[in-house]
Amino acid sequence: MSGRVYLDWNATAPLREEARAAMVAALDVTGNPSSVHAEGRAAKMIVERAREEVAEAVGCKAKEIVFTSGATEAAGVLAGFDAVTVEPTAHDCLQAHAKGEGGVLALGLANSETGVLAEVPARDGPVLLDIVQAVGRVPFAFGWSGVDFAILSAHKIGGPKGVGALIVREGVDIATLRPGGGQEMGRRSGTENVAGIAGFGAAATAAARDLAGGVWACVADLRDGLEARLAAAAGDTIFVGRDRARLPNTSCILTPGWKGETQVMQMDLAGFAVSAGSACSSGKVKASRVLQAMGYDARDAASAIRVSIGPATAKEDLDRFAAAWLAARARHMARAA
Amino acid sequence: MSGRVYLDWNATAPLREEARAAMVAALDVTGNPSSVHAEGRAAKMIVERAREEVAEAVGCKAKEIVFTSGATEAAGVLAGFDAVTVEPTAHDCLQAHAKGEGGVLALGLANSETGVLAEVPARDGPVLLDIVQAVGRVPFAFGWSGVDFAILSAHKIGGPKGVGALIVREGVDIATLRPGGGQEMGRRSGTENVAGIAGFGAAATAAARDLAGGVWACVADLRDGLEARLAAAAGDTIFVGRDRARLPNTSCILTPGWKGETQVMQMDLAGFAVSAGSACSSGKVKASRVLQAMGYDARDAASAIRVSIGPATAKEDLDRFAAAWLAARARHMARAA
Repeated sequence: MSGRVYLDWNATAPLREEARAAMVAALDVTGNPSSVHAEGRAAKMIVERAREEVAEAVGCKAKEIVFTSGATEAAGVLAGFDAVTVEPTAHDCLQAHAKGEGGVLALGLANSETGVLAEVPARDGPVLLDIVQAVGRVPFAFGWSGVDFAILSAHKIGGPKGVGALIVREGVDIATLRPGGGQEMGRRSGTENVAGIAGFGAAATAAARDLAGGVWACVADLRDGLEARLAAAAGDTIFVGRDRARLPNTSCILTPGWKGETQVMQMDLAGFAVSAGSACSSGKVKASRVLQAMGYDARDAASAIRVSIGPATAKEDLDRFAAAWLAARARHMARAA
Repeated sequence: MSGRVYLDWNATAPLREEARAAMVAALDVTGNPSSVHAEGRAAKMIVERAREEVAEAVGCKAKEIVFTSGATEAAGVLAGFDAVTVEPTAHDCLQAHAKGEGGVLALGLANSETGVLAEVPARDGPVLLDIVQAVGRVPFAFGWSGVDFAILSAHKIGGPKGVGALIVREGVDIATLRPGGGQEMGRRSGTENVAGIAGFGAAATAAARDLAGGVWACVADLRDGLEARLAAAAGDTIFVGRDRARLPNTSCILTPGWKGETQVMQMDLAGFAVSAGSACSSGKVKASRVLQAMGYDARDAASAIRVSIGPATAKEDLDRFAAAWLAARARHMARAA
């Protein structure tokens, strides 16, 4: 979409060129990875190479990875527990699994709406860590994390939509996510999304390379510059989580009394893609549970937008956004006065 | 793989050019279909167009389709029933769901190993029809079938691996396949596999066009020619299901005493991809439950291979296969004598 500025990387990141190339190449491999002939083995090899790539990027063993259709499916591992406690900062989609106290603890390493990073508690019971927003953006190694499970999604790191992984610490038993043909070592049946998995692996490798190369420090500078400019021009703006450890790319901008939903539509018309809250399912616009859990009242919690950027975001994009947003804000203030 | 002949279309079909083009185009659409901005709406439009295409191809309403990561995930709808009866001819992967008698009946419209078509029984209780192998190869319309559920997979009709659909008759309630963000009208949460779904839609349209154009009658002629040639040269060969209504592309070739597993390896070395039984998960080679259910003993049921072809299969490919198979058979007979 020419002329548009995409500032919604936490909803989904643009596909990396490396991922695109890996997918296009994989599309030409006909075999079913479960077939024993040469064509099947070639497809299987793509899946296993990607498994190594993702493992290397997230600091786990290849055999700890179960490929899924995304983080939401991976979170299905929680169904095997009698009781699930979900931290209020966890991935929104996990909350449907909450059944009671104790048992497994599920929490998000980085909150999708604010970017705020969680402390992973030392705990006797099992922990599931949602690393969807954190992986590739802040240093993380599953092996060192001490948690039993992690879930992630390819499309947040520049891979394709519709593929992800559950990471299960070696030695931890889980109920099968899906019975059937016995793929993924019996943990998740069904013919593999070979092209998607290939793209996931390539994206993971590229994401790890970028992170090690310091790319996200530059992203943080851009984000901080945007916030400084908006703060200077609109002094009552709240940047939620600005005083906490948070992702380098996320800005949660709260303007009391100016509905986030309205802001998103106005910015969309002006050519900018931003969001209000998480992008789990369209049409559901309500006060953010995350912001309410942080102590904001319902009105304030409905008055925030999320700007989330990435390495492809240019300073000029943010300058144009700041100008457009400040102009819209001035119109809002004039109407409200 | 140059020089190789792929005769394992029931394991997975080669990607259609139309599907490839639709996927490559979709890869450049960044948005998350759940985002309300223009980029999100563009992604959503791809998903909804594909839904119309698949609906048109399988004779159902667009709103009856729930996109999934494949037929195995779609079969998860059976978990919502207390009792599941699985017909022995049904898709192998369904059998793990069987819990008892009564309740829902699950059966395969076409058996993957033999191609034999099932009669769909008139029945008071709900029926789930596995149309994975049948769709696009024999005429079928969900709307006329009388069943409540159907499951299918994109990669068997020339779409990508890792995407499929559950079809739920309008008015029938199901438990959600997966809680979370509420995508697919709340029936299956998780960010959609946009590129895969785009490929599925394009493949469905092309498959319906090919079927209507009579392409599979030519495929049946090729298959029948192969069987006639093998029967003439090896009179004791059994073509399982040859006397029954079956798919136009499938030949289940049983040679008592010559293990299917051995045949598959010998043919693979000779440049031909065929299979022994279904391709659900590699490494599991055992006597076919399907053939045993048809009355063959364990030894015979382990002595079959499946040759499954498609519109891209050339008569010369089958001539070369017949020559190679007959030569291998002669060597087997010489050793056994």
